[in-house]
Amino acid sequence: MVAALGGNALLARGEALTADNQRRSVQRAAPALAAILRAGHQLVITHGNGPQVGLLALQGAAYKPDEAYPLDVLGAETEGMIGYLIEQELENALGHDRPVAVLLTQIVVDANDPAFANPTKFVGPVYPEAEARKLAAARGWAIAPDGEKWRRVVASPKPQEIPDLAVLRLLLGEGVVVICAGGGGIPVVRRADGSLIGVEAVIDKDHASALLATVLKADALLMLTDVAAVFRDFGTDWATPIARLTPEEAAGLPLPQGSMAPKVIAACNFVRAGGRLAGIGRLEDALAILNGRAGTLVTTQTI
Amino acid sequence: MVAALGGNALLARGEALTADNQRRSVQRAAPALAAILRAGHQLVITHGNGPQVGLLALQGAAYKPDEAYPLDVLGAETEGMIGYLIEQELENALGHDRPVAVLLTQIVVDANDPAFANPTKFVGPVYPEAEARKLAAARGWAIAPDGEKWRRVVASPKPQEIPDLAVLRLLLGEGVVVICAGGGGIPVVRRADGSLIGVEAVIDKDHASALLATVLKADALLMLTDVAAVFRDFGTDWATPIARLTPEEAAGLPLPQGSMAPKVIAACNFVRAGGRLAGIGRLEDALAILNGRAGTLVTTQTI
Repeated sequence: MVAALGGNALLARGEALTADNQRRSVQRAAPALAAILRAGHQLVITHGNGPQVGLLALQGAAYKPDEAYPLDVLGAETEGMIGYLIEQELENALGHDRPVAVLLTQIVVDANDPAFANPTKFVGPVYPEAEARKLAAARGWAIAPDGEKWRRVVASPKPQEIPDLAVLRLLLGEGVVVICAGGGGIPVVRRADGSLIGVEAVIDKDHASALLATVLKADALLMLTDVAAVFRDFGTDWATPIARLTPEEAAGLPLPQGSMAPKVIAACNFVRAGGRLAGIGRLEDALAILNGRAGTLVTTQTI
Repeated sequence: MVAALGGNALLARGEALTADNQRRSVQRAAPALAAILRAGHQLVITHGNGPQVGLLALQGAAYKPDEAYPLDVLGAETEGMIGYLIEQELENALGHDRPVAVLLTQIVVDANDPAFANPTKFVGPVYPEAEARKLAAARGWAIAPDGEKWRRVVASPKPQEIPDLAVLRLLLGEGVVVICAGGGGIPVVRRADGSLIGVEAVIDKDHASALLATVLKADALLMLTDVAAVFRDFGTDWATPIARLTPEEAAGLPLPQGSMAPKVIAACNFVRAGGRLAGIGRLEDALAILNGRAGTLVTTQTI
């Protein structure tokens, strides 16, 4: 099973992105992950990095804007930082009775992906329009409105291939719990000579997790966040959680922008590619979602 | 074989710590590492992180000093960043014909290590004394003089145990080239209940590499830098490179402070613990050092 931890499962909404707050959130997440393992499932853990990659970009810009690191390098940094916290707290929750490993993960995207010409993924904080325009000119950013304010946007190309898959399979085959593809993986493109090189992009972590679950032939893909389920009429007084969803039903469902739409699309991609079920819901409900007692289950047929 | 890449093998002296400069240095390093592999050796690669961890600390302080990350988290970030660059460039140098993996590595130190009461490892830039004292008061740093100027100093406890060893062995057994223990590993202590928790420290990467080489029963430990060898009378007109050294001879050798002394001590620790040979020298001479045609070889007896 592949379990994708959303940003809101890694840091409570509204909390400052300090190391302590991140550790506390991961400490809350660890028992839910340990419960999946204790129930006998084999587990690959992926995670988001949106707030963290935004913070590292800001820290770099605050120090020496001219020497700011590109997004592939920042992504690698967040795989180290977040992966470390998850590994340590999960090992502690498991009483160090089975191996957990963080595997740095590059993910290949297509250099001709239309996303590079049309950056849409918000990174970092919001700014008043004038300031955002100034920053865009100074740093070569693309920017776009986010509500009343403006933000930096970067390309979010589709994940195509996971070069580290052989190593990941090897670890899973030996019973290692693997934390990988953090932040959607480190985005790289393949050059004409076959070599890989990092690119300025952020891969959606739910799409990366769906690709990972598909190529691993995982039984289930869980996308875990702080929202109980996919809702019909979300944001209204008559919002109702959806327990079961097929890709056909999902296609007709109006979904709010933001983090739920990519989750539903990733879930549909996974089950269309042969996955048995994809679940969306609260981290602490992980096992209940798998058993159909919480969250939203996406499957190609009625179970 | 364990090959430890020194900071000066990862960034040319005097160069700014940009992502491009680091990548170019790693591109220069990759062919030497590929040559070791092509000669038929099994390889674990470790690396320093001194300049990088200092930079991340500065970036964090420049942005929000009150929310600066502790050294275990920063160390994990550098394992991601540097590990990524080495993995990508080494895979490219190898033509992607064998798997390379970056394994995040915690290393246990003793919470009662005297180093915690006596921090000696310089981190970050030099400051005039008055400014250093101000920063020390504001941020709780320990500081110490470094030549005419002052710098932050942190504890550098001895590495004791590598919890991720089982996973590392598994990967090596399957022919994976593993990059691990970057920056000396992420420093953690074991609490009374057996759980692990990160600590504010930086483990010396040569000592961590020697421990790793010892527990893996590696045939050789190579510490690779931009200096040709250990020198007798270093810094004088009559400085001469030392081709062979036993731990007994090394004990009587006056060594300049800085990066060479820990390398010689780590080399001696490794061969005293049963290692066949430890080599110190230039990265591009790696194979020649192994064959006794360059650098300094430390062994318990004449080969």
